[in-house]
Amino acid sequence: MDTIFSYQSLYNFTYSVFKHIGCSDTDATTATKSLLAADVRGIDSHGVARLSGYVRLWEAGRINSNPDIHIKHETPSTAVVDGGAGLGLVVAPHAMQIAIDKAANVGTGWVSVCNSNHFGIAGYHAMMALPYDMIGIAMTNASALVAPTFSIERMLGTNPIAVAIPAGNEAPFVADMATTTAANGKLEILQRKNAEAPLGWVQTKEGAPSTNASALKTGGALLPLGSDREHGSHKGYALGSIVDIFSAVLSGASYGPWAPPFPAYVPMPENMPGKGLGHFFGAMRIDAFRTADEFKQHIDNWLRRFRNAKPAEGHGKVLVPGDPEREMEAIRMKEGIPVVESVVNDLQAVAAKFNIEFR
Amino acid sequence: MDTIFSYQSLYNFTYSVFKHIGCSDTDATTATKSLLAADVRGIDSHGVARLSGYVRLWEAGRINSNPDIHIKHETPSTAVVDGGAGLGLVVAPHAMQIAIDKAANVGTGWVSVCNSNHFGIAGYHAMMALPYDMIGIAMTNASALVAPTFSIERMLGTNPIAVAIPAGNEAPFVADMATTTAANGKLEILQRKNAEAPLGWVQTKEGAPSTNASALKTGGALLPLGSDREHGSHKGYALGSIVDIFSAVLSGASYGPWAPPFPAYVPMPENMPGKGLGHFFGAMRIDAFRTADEFKQHIDNWLRRFRNAKPAEGHGKVLVPGDPEREMEAIRMKEGIPVVESVVNDLQAVAAKFNIEFR
Repeated sequence: MDTIFSYQSLYNFTYSVFKHIGCSDTDATTATKSLLAADVRGIDSHGVARLSGYVRLWEAGRINSNPDIHIKHETPSTAVVDGGAGLGLVVAPHAMQIAIDKAANVGTGWVSVCNSNHFGIAGYHAMMALPYDMIGIAMTNASALVAPTFSIERMLGTNPIAVAIPAGNEAPFVADMATTTAANGKLEILQRKNAEAPLGWVQTKEGAPSTNASALKTGGALLPLGSDREHGSHKGYALGSIVDIFSAVLSGASYGPWAPPFPAYVPMPENMPGKGLGHFFGAMRIDAFRTADEFKQHIDNWLRRFRNAKPAEGHGKVLVPGDPEREMEAIRMKEGIPVVESVVNDLQAVAAKFNIEFR
Repeated sequence: MDTIFSYQSLYNFTYSVFKHIGCSDTDATTATKSLLAADVRGIDSHGVARLSGYVRLWEAGRINSNPDIHIKHETPSTAVVDGGAGLGLVVAPHAMQIAIDKAANVGTGWVSVCNSNHFGIAGYHAMMALPYDMIGIAMTNASALVAPTFSIERMLGTNPIAVAIPAGNEAPFVADMATTTAANGKLEILQRKNAEAPLGWVQTKEGAPSTNASALKTGGALLPLGSDREHGSHKGYALGSIVDIFSAVLSGASYGPWAPPFPAYVPMPENMPGKGLGHFFGAMRIDAFRTADEFKQHIDNWLRRFRNAKPAEGHGKVLVPGDPEREMEAIRMKEGIPVVESVVNDLQAVAAKFNIEFR
């Protein structure tokens, strides 16, 4: 049974937890907003479900709640930011703001980040650009769960890419996607239900196609977007690789199979070639290309044309990236956020640990 | 039966054709190199196979062989370029060079292009950045053949993305991919053989899954990377959309279902919202992030680690994006380029038209 929580009650609790691990008021606010953006947009795997995981990383000394986030190197349109081993939920908005400021000055801004941690959903950071009439881009590497095409080794994370594009009267375009066929969170949902996964999501330890939603627990791997070579898995593999290189090789973070794992009980990889997890952010000022008014008139036309594309039988309408999440946000801000029992129990344990109220 | 041509003989012929349609020496050289990059890299659908198509576009007055390519608007890190209705094969390298020059000045350069035409393979333009120790990015929109997830309408082109990343001692990373499950050129090969397509490449006019390689001729559509919703087609659809918006909505080109068709006999769409086809180029100076030496040491490590990932049974090795094309280039520069009979006939007709030698 799910329990329904209001946004405000989850906000108060999450804020309090971040304060208890030593975050400043400002950082606790930033981290809470970043984290809960996942819950309100319906990406349940990346919201409060991960809160206890962040706490465990802090307990293990892998997260510094008072990080020295600083620019290591910069040019007018770029920067490398050292996240000081902080919460990715705090480091990412900080770095995205640098990208936005650079875009304000020279048209675009591009920031690669090292020494960070899991940053929640990529879409939240990309969307920071929208009120500035800028296109926002966010990506991150992650612990290795994905096998390249023709391989049985886990070499890449689910490495998401988010792109947010402002509009005029229409709702904006917001793509936010793992570069795998299915996000790991979707597998976890099937595992809880003891259900099979569609073919094409995972492979066994030997590299055979599998419908076992728990294949990763027995040495299997997630598959890149495309599933197999015949259906373009080499393209998903390329996309995940680009995210890894932009986020971690450009910045000096730890890349590929050496990316630090999210679960605190998993030992860190040996011989890590860089510091922590890596992210990559971009901001492009619309009026660095054409006037914002002209652009908005055309992007509205684009959005309307695609939303009104002829639907296939059995489908009421054609969606534009970001539509399902925005519709979910409207519902959940009004009706509350359902949290599954195992996560509620998990949060109650965190509440007990810090002696704070959770209801 | 294929006929084998040396690179030099295809070069001489192609150059001569571009001269005959009125290109300057410089532009004919640029266009020939861009076009033949496809043939040497094994992307046979985009090389000399398209030469007669460019000639027909010129005959139809849709290509200006003496274009006024100029910057419409710019900031230190961006520009919008009007391609003057020129050959994309000429406009694209021109615009990419602007991106590279801007990156030299402020770290990165980003150029959106309107009023252009088909630009050959995206990878060629992205790779222009490599000798400058820059990452190169190239994308383009194209005539609508692809149906969004849940739709039966052709709304997007195969909209490719290319990313080229320089290395030290290892061969560079070069991804170049249509954002569909399979490129249209692969379907054309199956059509010639009267063979079936794998499920997941195309759908029928009614939106049903199909193995008919000629489904597009009866109102069907290509499918976005991911094939169906369960396997992530909404991600391929999002990627194709991002390419369309960056290339055409940012620049003032014609977007979505209004993108101009490549075949000269297909009438132009009505009420086009912009000028010609659009492209988008990016260049990022490596040392705008970290020193090129440091980066190269780590990217070499990345490339070696992935090339040496444990292969699945039946596969000799794991590839990195760009490896198959580079291996093909080595073979074809030595042993020559095979051209299928229908294309040879097509080129002979072009030769006869301009009274030039082809052998």
